[in-house]
Amino acid sequence: MNDKQPAIRIAIVGHGNLGRGVESAIANNPDMTIAGIYTRRDPAQLQPLTAGVSVYPMDALAGHKDRIDVLILCGGSKDDLPRQSPELAAQFNLVDSFDTHARIPAHFAAVDAAAQAGKTTALISAGWDPGMFSINRVLGEALLPDGATYTFWGKGLSQGHSDAIRRVSGVAGGVQYTIPVPEAVDQVRSGVRPQLTTREKHRRDCFVVLAPGADAEAVRQAIVTMPHYFDEYDTTVQFISAEQLAREHGAMPHGGFVIRSGNTSAANKQVIEYRLQLDSNPEFTSSVLVAYARAVHRMAQAGQFGCKTVFDVAPGLLSPQSPAELRERLL
Amino acid sequence: MNDKQPAIRIAIVGHGNLGRGVESAIANNPDMTIAGIYTRRDPAQLQPLTAGVSVYPMDALAGHKDRIDVLILCGGSKDDLPRQSPELAAQFNLVDSFDTHARIPAHFAAVDAAAQAGKTTALISAGWDPGMFSINRVLGEALLPDGATYTFWGKGLSQGHSDAIRRVSGVAGGVQYTIPVPEAVDQVRSGVRPQLTTREKHRRDCFVVLAPGADAEAVRQAIVTMPHYFDEYDTTVQFISAEQLAREHGAMPHGGFVIRSGNTSAANKQVIEYRLQLDSNPEFTSSVLVAYARAVHRMAQAGQFGCKTVFDVAPGLLSPQSPAELRERLL
Repeated sequence: MNDKQPAIRIAIVGHGNLGRGVESAIANNPDMTIAGIYTRRDPAQLQPLTAGVSVYPMDALAGHKDRIDVLILCGGSKDDLPRQSPELAAQFNLVDSFDTHARIPAHFAAVDAAAQAGKTTALISAGWDPGMFSINRVLGEALLPDGATYTFWGKGLSQGHSDAIRRVSGVAGGVQYTIPVPEAVDQVRSGVRPQLTTREKHRRDCFVVLAPGADAEAVRQAIVTMPHYFDEYDTTVQFISAEQLAREHGAMPHGGFVIRSGNTSAANKQVIEYRLQLDSNPEFTSSVLVAYARAVHRMAQAGQFGCKTVFDVAPGLLSPQSPAELRERLL
Repeated sequence: MNDKQPAIRIAIVGHGNLGRGVESAIANNPDMTIAGIYTRRDPAQLQPLTAGVSVYPMDALAGHKDRIDVLILCGGSKDDLPRQSPELAAQFNLVDSFDTHARIPAHFAAVDAAAQAGKTTALISAGWDPGMFSINRVLGEALLPDGATYTFWGKGLSQGHSDAIRRVSGVAGGVQYTIPVPEAVDQVRSGVRPQLTTREKHRRDCFVVLAPGADAEAVRQAIVTMPHYFDEYDTTVQFISAEQLAREHGAMPHGGFVIRSGNTSAANKQVIEYRLQLDSNPEFTSSVLVAYARAVHRMAQAGQFGCKTVFDVAPGLLSPQSPAELRERLL
C-alpha cells in the first residue's frame, strides 16, 4: 500500500451474509475504508460489525455521491441486482455478484449503457463462480486449446437446493450439501478427458427436519424426484432433529475446482487445476468483491468506463501493492 | 476466433526445446501463423516441425519487420535474453520467458526503455513460474490479505539441478527430480499455515550414470553436499546405467502448486490452490508464451506500449474469443 494515497471509500449496499462479509474483508485491507452501510430496513435496527460505521437508508445514497468511491452491492441476483446495478451505475462506480448465468448478457448490456452514459466503472458477476472459476476456465482454454474443462462444486452447502428442500410439504428445516464424486475427479485429474453425466459428477446429501406428523418416506420421495434440483442426481436424505440441524449444519462451507486437461502434443498431457476449500462461502465471496472494488476504483481513475467483468481486469490491479513491488516480490 | 481478423504472425527466435514447443502450440491456435524461425545456427541445418515454415538467420530479422506481429524469444535467461530482449524490443513486439528472479527489475527497466522509445509492447517473464504461479501469488494475497502463500515445485525434472549433477567429476550423465514432501503439502492444505524450512518442503532425487572408474561414494558425497543446489535438502542418489537413463528419464515432466491459506474472520479458514501437472515442461511453457503473444498483439494494437508482465494482462486478452462470447460461455 502506498501510504500517500487516500483510502478507497467503499459503500456497502445491503447487509445480509454478503454485506457482513464485506465489512469483515475491509478490516483486512488497510487501503480501504467503509463510507457507510445502506439498507432498505430501518437503519436503527441494523448492527454493523465495525464500531463507528454509519448506517443510512437507501435513499440517502444519491446525496452521498461525493463521499463514496465504489459501491459494493450485496443484494440478490433474482430481485435486487437486475434493478439496482443499472440504476446505481448511472451515478456510482460499483461491483456486484450477479450470478444468474443465463441473464449475464442482458445484465451486462443494461449496466454498460448506464455506466457509459454516467462515465462510471461497474464490474458485474464477481465472486468465485462466477468469478475466480470463470477466470480459470478462460485461462485453461487459452493455454491448452486442445483440451476439456471440468467444473466441480463442493463439498459445500447449496443455498438454492436447501431452499428447495424447505419448500417441500412436511419439511420443517433442512440443508443440502453438493459433493463431487471422487471417482469422477480422479478420472479428470488423470488427464483422460472423460465424458461425464450430471449424475456421475456430483452427489447431493440432504439433512432434513420433519414437521410434526409428516410422512418421512413421502418427504424423501418428494425431494429425490424433484425436477432439475434432484432428479438427475444420486440424492441421499437423512432425517435429523431441529437441535442437530442447528448444532451441526449452521456453517456455510463450499468450494470446488476447475480442471483443464489437454494435450500440447500427441505424447504430452497437461493438467491445470484451480481449487477452493472455503469454510465460509459468503465471506470468501465478499473478499473477492472487495479486491475487485480496488480494481474498479483504479480503472475509473484511469478513465476506463463502462461495464466490466473479471475477464477485463489485470491481476495487478487487485493488489494494494505497486507494480514494481509486485514484480520484485511475486513474479 | 473472429474469422475476419488476419492471423497473428509470430516469429520464433531460437529453436531449442522452447522454440519447438512454440511451433507445436501455434498449430493448436488457428488465429496464429508462423512468420518464420530465426536462428544463430546454420538455417539449412535446422528442421522445423511444420511443413512450409521458413528458417532464417538471426540477422534477417531486422529486414522482416513488416511481416511479423510478435516475436517469441526462446533463448536462455543467462546469456540470450538480457541482451536480446532490450535490443529487439526497440523494433518488435515480443514475449520472453526471462526467469532469473533477482534480475527481473533490471531486465524490466532495460526492456521498458527500449519498448517505450520504439512504441512496442514487450512482455517479459511469461511461462508458469514466473508466469501462472506468479499470477496466483498476487491473486492469493489480494483475496486473502490475512494469510500465507506456499509454492511447491514438482514432481519434476529440474534442468538446473540436472546440469549441476553433470558437472560433478566422475559423472557421465544424470537427472534430478524435485519432489514436494507430502506431509508438508498436507499441512499447508489443511489451512494451519505452518512455518516450513527448505528441507521440509522439497526432496531431491538424483539418477546418476558413473563415468568409467569413478568412485560411487565420492560422487554421492559431492552431490549431496553441493552448496545451494543440494546441501539444504534431503537428497537421494541412485546409480543407473546409461541405457536406463536414456530409456526411463528422457521426458521433462514438471509442475507444482501455489497454495494461499488465509482467514476471512477468526472462525473461517479459506484455502486456494493452483496446481499444474505437466508431462512436458517446455511444451507447457511454450503454450503460455503463445497465449501471451496474442495478448501482446492486442495491447500493441491498443497503443499500450512499454514493458509488461503477466500482472498487466487481463485474462480475456489471452483468449481468441470475443469478450461477448467469453461472458456468455465461460463467466
